[in-house]
Amino acid sequence: MRALVLDGELRFVPGYPDPAPMSGESLVRVRRAGICGTDLELVRGYMTYRGVPGHEFVGEVVASDNRGLVGRRVAGEINAACGRCGFCIDGLGRHCPNRTVLGILGRDGAFAEYLVLPDANLHVIPDTISDEAAVFVEPIAAAYEIFEQIFIRRDAKIAILGDGRLGAIVASVLKAEAYEPVVGGHHREKLSRLAAFGLKVELEEALTPGFDVVIDCTGSGAGFGRALALVRARGTVILKSTVGGSAALNLAPVVINEVTVIGSRCGRFGPAIEAMASGRIDPLALIEGTYPIEDGVAAFRAAASPLNFKILLRV
Amino acid sequence: MRALVLDGELRFVPGYPDPAPMSGESLVRVRRAGICGTDLELVRGYMTYRGVPGHEFVGEVVASDNRGLVGRRVAGEINAACGRCGFCIDGLGRHCPNRTVLGILGRDGAFAEYLVLPDANLHVIPDTISDEAAVFVEPIAAAYEIFEQIFIRRDAKIAILGDGRLGAIVASVLKAEAYEPVVGGHHREKLSRLAAFGLKVELEEALTPGFDVVIDCTGSGAGFGRALALVRARGTVILKSTVGGSAALNLAPVVINEVTVIGSRCGRFGPAIEAMASGRIDPLALIEGTYPIEDGVAAFRAAASPLNFKILLRV
Repeated sequence: MRALVLDGELRFVPGYPDPAPMSGESLVRVRRAGICGTDLELVRGYMTYRGVPGHEFVGEVVASDNRGLVGRRVAGEINAACGRCGFCIDGLGRHCPNRTVLGILGRDGAFAEYLVLPDANLHVIPDTISDEAAVFVEPIAAAYEIFEQIFIRRDAKIAILGDGRLGAIVASVLKAEAYEPVVGGHHREKLSRLAAFGLKVELEEALTPGFDVVIDCTGSGAGFGRALALVRARGTVILKSTVGGSAALNLAPVVINEVTVIGSRCGRFGPAIEAMASGRIDPLALIEGTYPIEDGVAAFRAAASPLNFKILLRV
Repeated sequence: MRALVLDGELRFVPGYPDPAPMSGESLVRVRRAGICGTDLELVRGYMTYRGVPGHEFVGEVVASDNRGLVGRRVAGEINAACGRCGFCIDGLGRHCPNRTVLGILGRDGAFAEYLVLPDANLHVIPDTISDEAAVFVEPIAAAYEIFEQIFIRRDAKIAILGDGRLGAIVASVLKAEAYEPVVGGHHREKLSRLAAFGLKVELEEALTPGFDVVIDCTGSGAGFGRALALVRARGTVILKSTVGGSAALNLAPVVINEVTVIGSRCGRFGPAIEAMASGRIDPLALIEGTYPIEDGVAAFRAAASPLNFKILLRV
């Protein structure tokens, strides 16, 4: 099959081996896939991943032991869990220590004609959600994960750091859930576009300390320190970006101000699909371009530009 | 008055000016004071503090507008708050942005004949608590602060990193509250002594990952990374040590494992005094020696030795 393959560097491979589903797994023909910050980090060496990247996708099930899935249009939760450990029994398969992760850890991903995921990971996409929009189910679910972890008061003063795709998605989800976050960023042009989506924006250097909640979506090692400088004492910093590598950090303000720091990763797809199907969130304005998979390397280059929100691949 | 003074370096000053209480403040004659890790950090330059250090003490009120306090034996909460800001109104004066902090920020501390604190900060010590034990009210209150911040299940698997004075106090408080923490450390001799106090101990390298809660009491920049390696996914790391300066940290595990990190500092004195008065906690075994204030520099040297738990000063 045609695939983008990461093997030290990223390249298009016209004849990559088709994946073979095991028992309990479905074979999915990918229709659209999205490039996210984690994919860019993988290319930079994060997780030392080798194989097909990509974990935001919509596709059609072409083979499955679950007959009800065959022919259906699906998105898929990316953590393939063992189903037997304590985490799995608690419904937290996304933390299963034995898991593989689509396009990130031990399992070829979505930047290819076909992928394989456990049947249990697949969610049928309602007809009212287009292919282009369905690619956003995964990152929107990741934003909804915040509400699975903590309760945030509707009148909380919330800052989102980062005017990139992740910041835009997290801000859209918070707005859809009746919060009023302000997005702080460094790019006037992107902030203007986010403002045009109805989001409150501010140049980051104009934000003043005292936020109840600061959500780091910068994708940068410096984001945490900036979040600590803006959060109030006893406030909460939520880390949404995964940054590979170490940075020089001073944790004294966490202790002195008794800040709570919460790491937040993948979420359940249900709340995201419901929010999109109901029309509360429409991510289409974030799409900057759709590239055929053969031009995947160029697509990654476009996704890496700080001025672009979302780049899709068409398979 | 006689005082230990930090001014680039620590020295004993026989004729330091007496402090003068303002309206609403009491003048306290110090009887005993304890040296804690923060004091050692201050001498190393943390907070660039200049003045009299010391914030763990017991003393006698010699002058106060509050007549009921005069002649009473007291310990004192160390954050002197404005009483008017949002934090103060919420009962969180220890986070008042206008606060001074005894012996740490803008207010001379307890390693002197006299100190001054707002009347509202003083707590009368019951006769059943000796002077030597009363010095521990402040650090024991700091350990109880954890319970003001989060709920921990009694059956939680808890590791305390650090076999020093802070780890010993936090472990004693958890044990007093019917938890069963294990203290992980590097000093076999100290671990044996902690075991003799009835605490569960383990060489840190022998601890295996999977703790629900890991409490960093190492006082070292490396403690956070070790806590992250030991906590389970969706678990909680509590930072009790304040470490000045930056360290190279990788926050990716916080996000990937959705860890909650909670900074924890000073606590209310009430729960600590109650626990000590009831006999649930007896810290006397932690005392390694009591030095006259004139020998304060030697006392600090003793407190800095990794083999010593608590060093007191007698004024």
